[in-house]
Amino acid sequence: MANGTRRVVIVGASAAGLRCAARLARLRPDWAVTVVEQREVFSYAACGLPYVLSGDVDEAAALRRTSDGALRDAAYFAAVKGVTVLAGRRAAAIDAAGRALTVAGPDGRAERLEWDELVLATGAAARRLPGQPDHPRVRSFHVLEDLEPLLAGLRRGAIARVAIAGAGLVGCELAEAFRALWGAEVVLIEAAGAPLPGVVDAEIGAVVAATLRRAGVELRTGAPVAAISAGDERVEFTAAGERLGADALVVAVGVRPEVALARDAGIAVGLTGAIAVDDRLATSVPHVWAIGDCVEVRRLPDGGATCMPLGSLANRQGRTLANVLAGRDERFAGAVGAVAAKVFDLNVAATGLTRARAEALGLAARSVWITAHDRAHYWPEAQEIVIHLVYEAATRRVLGVQAVGAGEVAKRVDVASSLIARGADLAALAELEQAYAPPYAPAIDPLATAAFAAMNQEDGLVARRPDDLQPGDRLLDVRHPGERAGRPIAAAVMIPLEELRAALPLPDGAPWLAVCERGTRSAEAARLVRAAGGSASYLGGGLQLRAMMGLEREP
Amino acid sequence: MANGTRRVVIVGASAAGLRCAARLARLRPDWAVTVVEQREVFSYAACGLPYVLSGDVDEAAALRRTSDGALRDAAYFAAVKGVTVLAGRRAAAIDAAGRALTVAGPDGRAERLEWDELVLATGAAARRLPGQPDHPRVRSFHVLEDLEPLLAGLRRGAIARVAIAGAGLVGCELAEAFRALWGAEVVLIEAAGAPLPGVVDAEIGAVVAATLRRAGVELRTGAPVAAISAGDERVEFTAAGERLGADALVVAVGVRPEVALARDAGIAVGLTGAIAVDDRLATSVPHVWAIGDCVEVRRLPDGGATCMPLGSLANRQGRTLANVLAGRDERFAGAVGAVAAKVFDLNVAATGLTRARAEALGLAARSVWITAHDRAHYWPEAQEIVIHLVYEAATRRVLGVQAVGAGEVAKRVDVASSLIARGADLAALAELEQAYAPPYAPAIDPLATAAFAAMNQEDGLVARRPDDLQPGDRLLDVRHPGERAGRPIAAAVMIPLEELRAALPLPDGAPWLAVCERGTRSAEAARLVRAAGGSASYLGGGLQLRAMMGLEREP
Repeated sequence: MANGTRRVVIVGASAAGLRCAARLARLRPDWAVTVVEQREVFSYAACGLPYVLSGDVDEAAALRRTSDGALRDAAYFAAVKGVTVLAGRRAAAIDAAGRALTVAGPDGRAERLEWDELVLATGAAARRLPGQPDHPRVRSFHVLEDLEPLLAGLRRGAIARVAIAGAGLVGCELAEAFRALWGAEVVLIEAAGAPLPGVVDAEIGAVVAATLRRAGVELRTGAPVAAISAGDERVEFTAAGERLGADALVVAVGVRPEVALARDAGIAVGLTGAIAVDDRLATSVPHVWAIGDCVEVRRLPDGGATCMPLGSLANRQGRTLANVLAGRDERFAGAVGAVAAKVFDLNVAATGLTRARAEALGLAARSVWITAHDRAHYWPEAQEIVIHLVYEAATRRVLGVQAVGAGEVAKRVDVASSLIARGADLAALAELEQAYAPPYAPAIDPLATAAFAAMNQEDGLVARRPDDLQPGDRLLDVRHPGERAGRPIAAAVMIPLEELRAALPLPDGAPWLAVCERGTRSAEAARLVRAAGGSASYLGGGLQLRAMMGLEREP
Repeated sequence: MANGTRRVVIVGASAAGLRCAARLARLRPDWAVTVVEQREVFSYAACGLPYVLSGDVDEAAALRRTSDGALRDAAYFAAVKGVTVLAGRRAAAIDAAGRALTVAGPDGRAERLEWDELVLATGAAARRLPGQPDHPRVRSFHVLEDLEPLLAGLRRGAIARVAIAGAGLVGCELAEAFRALWGAEVVLIEAAGAPLPGVVDAEIGAVVAATLRRAGVELRTGAPVAAISAGDERVEFTAAGERLGADALVVAVGVRPEVALARDAGIAVGLTGAIAVDDRLATSVPHVWAIGDCVEVRRLPDGGATCMPLGSLANRQGRTLANVLAGRDERFAGAVGAVAAKVFDLNVAATGLTRARAEALGLAARSVWITAHDRAHYWPEAQEIVIHLVYEAATRRVLGVQAVGAGEVAKRVDVASSLIARGADLAALAELEQAYAPPYAPAIDPLATAAFAAMNQEDGLVARRPDDLQPGDRLLDVRHPGERAGRPIAAAVMIPLEELRAALPLPDGAPWLAVCERGTRSAEAARLVRAAGGSASYLGGGLQLRAMMGLEREP
C-alpha cells in the first residue's frame, strides 16, 4: 500500500475525515484525495455550537474559520490542503468488490467514484426520543442547521420557556446558554437520577445539580421526557407523570453512530452499534477503513469496546489513519474518554470509568472524593474543586477521575488521563510531579491528595458518602465557631479540631461521623477518635457535601 | 524498624520535615516525634513570599495559616498532629555512634536529644555573591525575615529604585512585585544571556525578556553583579563594566544545600554539594535520613544526580520517608523537576531538561517550538502560548518541555512531567488524551501539536530558530494583508497561504524562509514550496518569533 499513486475517497467532511484527508495529501502529494460530504456547509467546530447560542462566540461563522481567519470551504481545502471536497453529495452505496462508491449529487443524479482505499467518517446522528414528532418546536441540537431556528426564536422573543431533554454535556451547556444569555425559563429533564450520567457519579452529579438549581434551572431527574405533543403555540410532554409545557423542546439525549452505509455493504458492526475496526482502523472489508464518531473504540484501561463520540479522538484517528494509509506502522491503541464542559460557573471534567460503570462491568470499584483549593489556598483567586477518584480495590489501579469546581479541573483530568491510559495505580497518582507555584497549584496537588485519601481508605480510614447518613449517626463538627454560623450542621458535638485531642475520648455509643468544611479536618478527627479507642468515620467535605446536605442553599 | 516504640528526631521544621513528622505521628501514634527548628517562626509557605511583596497576598501571616485559618505554630502541631516542635533551638552536632543530637537552646545552653532515627531536613540557604557585603541595603530574599525590611522600606518610600541580582524564578517574581505594586524602578541583572537560565532555553527566555522589558524592567543580561559597595544612601555595583546604583540590592542567585551538620558528622555529601541519599532517603550513616532541599535527587529521565530545591518535592519526600520509617516498602524514585512562575502577565512553566542542559550532559538533543491557542481559537478568552519541546534525536525520547504565555501552561507542563517521568517518546506525547471543550482547550492540544512538529522535524521538515536569520535568507510572508499592517516583516515575497499553491514554483535562488503569525501556515508553506521542487524552511512563529524579531515593540 505504501507505493504507487492511489485514489482515496473519504465519506464525511467531519473532523476525522478532513484531518485524515489533509494529512494524507501532505504525506502523499501524488495521491488523489477526495472527500464526499452530504451537507453544503462543513468543517465547523460542532463543539462550539452551544457557545454561539450562549453568546460566548459572536457568530456561527467563527466556528468555520481557522485561527488565522481563513474560511474552511472547498476552495480552502483545495488551495491549502490539496484535498478535493465534493460538498452536497450523498454517499449512497459502497461497491466493495468493484471498489467504487455511488454518490447522489445535488440534482439527484448518481455518479460512481472509484477508489483504491475508502474511508468511512460518517459520524453520528442525534438520538431521538420515542415518539418524537417532527415539528419546529421539537428539535435536536447536533448540527449547525439546528442552531439558527433556535437563535431566531430567541431573538424575536418566541422562546421564553424552553425544555431540554437530557442533562448530558450538551444539555447542561444548553441550559446555561438559554438561561444566562437569554434569561429563558429552563426546565431540564434527565432520565437518570442526577445530571451528567455516565460522565460523573451521583456524588459529583449532586454538585452539578446544585449549580443548575442555584442558577434558576428547573432540574427534574429520574424520569425521561415522554408523550410529546407539539402544537402551533406550545409543546407539551410528560415527565414523572406530570404534564409540562414549553415554547420549545430541545432533545439532547446523545448520539448514535451513522452506520447504514457500512452495514448495507456488509461491513461488520459491533455490539455497541458502531463500526468495528482493528487498531489500524481497518474495517472487516479489505481497503475500507473507518474513523471518528461512527467507530468502536477500545476503552482504556479495561479494554472493552465502546463508543466515544469526541472531537479530540476524531482528530487523532484521522491523523493515525493517514499515517497508516501512507505506509507507516502506526496504531490507535484506544482511549480513556476524557471530556469537559462548562456549566454556569462550574467547570466539569472527567476521564475513564465512573464507579457506576465500573461496577456494571463487574469490576470491584471503590471511590473517594476530596475537596481542595485549586491553587495555594492563600492565593486570592484560589477556588474549591472536588475530585472524585475511582479505583479497583484489589489492584489499586486507577479507573477514573471526575473533577468539578469553579477552579481548574480540565487539565488535572488530563494528567489523570495520561496516567490511566498507562495503567497507573494509586501510588503513581500520588507521586505525580507538578509545576508548583502559588498562582497555579497548592504544594500538594488535589489529584495527589485524592490518591492519598484512597490509600488511607484502603488502610482502613473510611469516608462515608454524604447521602449515606443514617438516623443513628452522631455528627462531630470540628469546624471553628465562625464557620458554623454561615453553614449550620445539626451536630451532636462541636469541638474545633485543635481542641479535639484534649477532649478525647468522646462518650461511647454509636459511631461518630466527623464533618468539617472541606473534609481534611474531619478525616484527621476520625483518626484521632479511633486512635483513642473510639469508633468513627468522616464525611467527604466541601462543595459536594454542602450540595448533598443542601447547605449551599443556606443564606 | 517497623516494630516497637521509637524516638524520631527531625532537624528542620521545613515543608519536608513537618510533613514527615505529621505523617509519622499519624502512622505511629505511639512513637515520639520531635522536630528541632532554629527559628522561632516556621511552617510558612516560603514560595508565597514574593506574593506578599506584590500585594497578591495581604499579609505574611496568611502564609502560616492552614486553609481553615488555623495558625501553624508549635501548639497547633502538638494538638492536631501529635508532634513536638522545639523552636528557637539550633542543632549543633550529631553523635551518630551515640545516637544523640546536641541542640543549642535560646539561652545558649546545650542539651542532648537521644534518637533512634534521625532525619535531616536542614533545607537550603541563599547563595551569596562574591564580595557581598553585610549591609541593610543588600539582602537575600529567601526567608520570612527577608521580607519585612523590604516591605518597610517600600512603605516609607525609601526604595524608589531597586536592583535584583539574578533573573531566576524568584528574581523574575520579585521584579514584578517591585514594579507592579510599588512602581519602583527595577534593574534586573542576569549573568546568563537570558532570564530563567537552566529553567528555559534562550528562545523562551527571549519571550520572558520581552515581557519584562515591556513592563518597564531594566533587564541586563550577560554579566553578573560585581564590586558591590553599600553606603548609607545607596548601593552601587558593576555589571558588564558599567557602574550602577540603586536604593537596595536584592540578591536572588539561587540557593545552596545546608549540609554542614551532616558533613561534620561524616555523612556523605555528593558532587552536587547536597547530602547523598538512596531511594529510601537513607544517608551513608545508618539510622540517619535526609529529605528536602538539602538532598541530592535522581533526575528523570536520565538518572543524573542533581539538586531540586522545590516545595512540591520536599512534601513528597517527607511523606515517603514517614512511610519508610513506619516500615512500608516505599521508594523515592526521582523527579523531573517541574517548576512554574508568574512573570507579570506571562505564565511560565518548565519540566525536565533544557536543550542547553541536555547538550551539556552529552545528549544529542533537538528541539522545536510552536505557538498555539490555549483554548479553542474562537473562544473569547483564548490566549497564545508557546511550547518548546526538547527531545533526544536518536530515541525520540522527550527530555523536557517549556511553556510560556498569557494562557494556561502550568497544567500542560504537568501532563508532560508525568509522561517524561515514564520515559515517553514523541509518539506518546502526540497521543495524549485531553478533556476537550472550547473553554479549556483546542481540539488538538498544543502539547500534541508540539510533538507533531518534532516528528515533522525528524522527517525532514526543518524549522529555523528566529535568531538564526542569515543575510542571504529570502523571507516568504504568507500572512493576509491585514495581518502585515500591524506587524511588518521585510519579506522578499508576500503571498497569502491560500494563494501560494497557484503561485508555485517560486523563483530559484537562495532557500526560502517562510514566516507567518503563529508558525502553522509557514510550516505548511515550506512544505508546499519543497513539494514543488524548491528549497525552504520556516520560522517558529508567534510570541517567540515576535519577541526575537523585536516585533512586540511595534505599535
